[in-house]
Amino acid sequence: MVLHAMRATDCATLTEITRVTGLSRPTVEGVVEDLIEAGLVMEKAAEEGAARRQGRPARRFRFRAEAGHLLGLEIGPHRVAALLSALDGRVMGAQAKDVDETASADERLERLRTAVAELLRRAGVPRSSLRAVGVATPGIVEADGTVRLSTALPEWTGLRLGERLSRSFKCPVLVENDANAAAVAEHWKGAATESDDVVFVLAGLSPGAGSLIGGRLHRGYGGAAGEIGALHLLGRGDTPETLLSTTDEPLHPLDEQAVAAVFAKARDGDQRARAAVERFIQRLVHDVAALVLALDPELVVIGGWAAGLDGALEPLRRELARYCLRPPKVALSLLGEAAVATGALRLALDHVEEQLFAVEGTVTARR
Amino acid sequence: MVLHAMRATDCATLTEITRVTGLSRPTVEGVVEDLIEAGLVMEKAAEEGAARRQGRPARRFRFRAEAGHLLGLEIGPHRVAALLSALDGRVMGAQAKDVDETASADERLERLRTAVAELLRRAGVPRSSLRAVGVATPGIVEADGTVRLSTALPEWTGLRLGERLSRSFKCPVLVENDANAAAVAEHWKGAATESDDVVFVLAGLSPGAGSLIGGRLHRGYGGAAGEIGALHLLGRGDTPETLLSTTDEPLHPLDEQAVAAVFAKARDGDQRARAAVERFIQRLVHDVAALVLALDPELVVIGGWAAGLDGALEPLRRELARYCLRPPKVALSLLGEAAVATGALRLALDHVEEQLFAVEGTVTARR
Repeated sequence: MVLHAMRATDCATLTEITRVTGLSRPTVEGVVEDLIEAGLVMEKAAEEGAARRQGRPARRFRFRAEAGHLLGLEIGPHRVAALLSALDGRVMGAQAKDVDETASADERLERLRTAVAELLRRAGVPRSSLRAVGVATPGIVEADGTVRLSTALPEWTGLRLGERLSRSFKCPVLVENDANAAAVAEHWKGAATESDDVVFVLAGLSPGAGSLIGGRLHRGYGGAAGEIGALHLLGRGDTPETLLSTTDEPLHPLDEQAVAAVFAKARDGDQRARAAVERFIQRLVHDVAALVLALDPELVVIGGWAAGLDGALEPLRRELARYCLRPPKVALSLLGEAAVATGALRLALDHVEEQLFAVEGTVTARR
Repeated sequence: MVLHAMRATDCATLTEITRVTGLSRPTVEGVVEDLIEAGLVMEKAAEEGAARRQGRPARRFRFRAEAGHLLGLEIGPHRVAALLSALDGRVMGAQAKDVDETASADERLERLRTAVAELLRRAGVPRSSLRAVGVATPGIVEADGTVRLSTALPEWTGLRLGERLSRSFKCPVLVENDANAAAVAEHWKGAATESDDVVFVLAGLSPGAGSLIGGRLHRGYGGAAGEIGALHLLGRGDTPETLLSTTDEPLHPLDEQAVAAVFAKARDGDQRARAAVERFIQRLVHDVAALVLALDPELVVIGGWAAGLDGALEPLRRELARYCLRPPKVALSLLGEAAVATGALRLALDHVEEQLFAVEGTVTARR
């Protein structure tokens, strides 16, 4: 309770903490001393030169967010990215690097390690200060951090990603599906802060989705919930690569530059490109409708390509209103490209907060 | 705890209850006395003629399941059905009546009331003994028992079904979507007793689904989760009525006899009928795949028509295995036609059990 109260404010006196928590003064004093010993709290006056002050002002204490740090990592087909924060979750730095979609697992992980090393060095944060690392990547991820299936990244299926990354970090490494992480991120500080029942759609040639039900991530029985991209394999034979092509040849499944070119041509009025984009949006609407009918969320957030795909929003709203019995709100991602890494960071923060509560429990027990 | 222990066994001595609950003998004695006063427990020896016995045998007590009764009601397009149980949930009697799909809301409710009256009279259970009534019906049902949208039944959309039925009963009336109720039923005593992550598909011309996540019903933000039947409105224009037709005219959306005739002809080898059934199964596979991809359940249970649709099971398993990243188990409903009313009964039982626990809490607090 004391830690909660102190994290919610910049700094506080013992009197203030006593009032907010409803605990007795001696208890608060004892807990604060324990938290100072654990390195999670410090006296603020001492920090700001109490010597200069007159009389004996009330001692002020603050939560030491800098007592530990967190990383949120994204490993995608075209780039790796890393976010760094202290224990308050505020982003202190970011680093991203392009990576070739054909890169091997070793190359990709090496690229990520370089990005992390640069980020930590720039921020002056020692590796030993890391308390948890969240990682988000395309595919079905098992609870132990193994990638069960991922078609987007070479050598990714079967990779023990959590174990591999654990060699670089002494703290816990948590691995999550990228769309799931993005859903968590939009709920934390994006387009979904007001809703606990959300579907986040990571639009792309093979769209994936992450869902929050009652504010909690719905992973599914085998971690595969939201893998709606496979739906197009059924019934209608055309792949998104074919739908989006303006020639008789399908696009390469991971060639996002070719996709961007089609969108650009469509904006310039090219008829074939417009027809291709139209086909693609129809497919997206169908996939999103399937998710909405199955889950009935309050809000659908569209991210991934859709950041540059404003054209998809109106058809989505229109079609959902026509065909869903109770259409949800539809919004664009507010976090854009940062959504996946931000969600990974939030998952790391969740893990550390659980630990902090455990510390708190221990401290309280000792009173 | 005492009530739980007593419900789990036919009858028990105070010594046995003390051992099972870990409570002290005086506490158990006091609670049992209170439960006897509340009419929920009775002494068994007294019931079976203790006078004839020699010496002074240990007193035996049993839970009085007959202290209250429950109804599970189904209101469908073609029939209304009622199940009756005592507080132990064991079905004591059933009554069903056909009703025309064009019947007005008043006619349909009157038909249901007649069925209920006959059932209660036959079982010799006074209406005043009813503790809760569960009702399941097609459509989106609001928390207050209003049918928000139902295309299957005339005059059903907007009907305050809970309120209307409350006039016939003095106890709480709980209204639920039919597929949701069936999912609960299969989990209770059907094909899904071993799994907490289940999608139940009520196959029909417009299939609906109910989902359990972690053993709990997932209703969705607005109670519309699983209304997958609307998916066919998107993209592919053909309605199920058209798909299943063997002529150039679509079937009537509610004409189940015509549907049965097509299935029968297909079994007899009629080529057009076989093609129609094939089309219908493909659509069902697509709808189920959408649900599976969105939710990732452990188990899919197919009910509704599928009870007479064994042919759908193999294609479903095959297609789900091909296209779902982690295919679920697929099973046929074990409860068949009784699934919906059974689920309604279970919902009534859930409600009453919550009340019983409340009684228990009060009794304990008084000790």
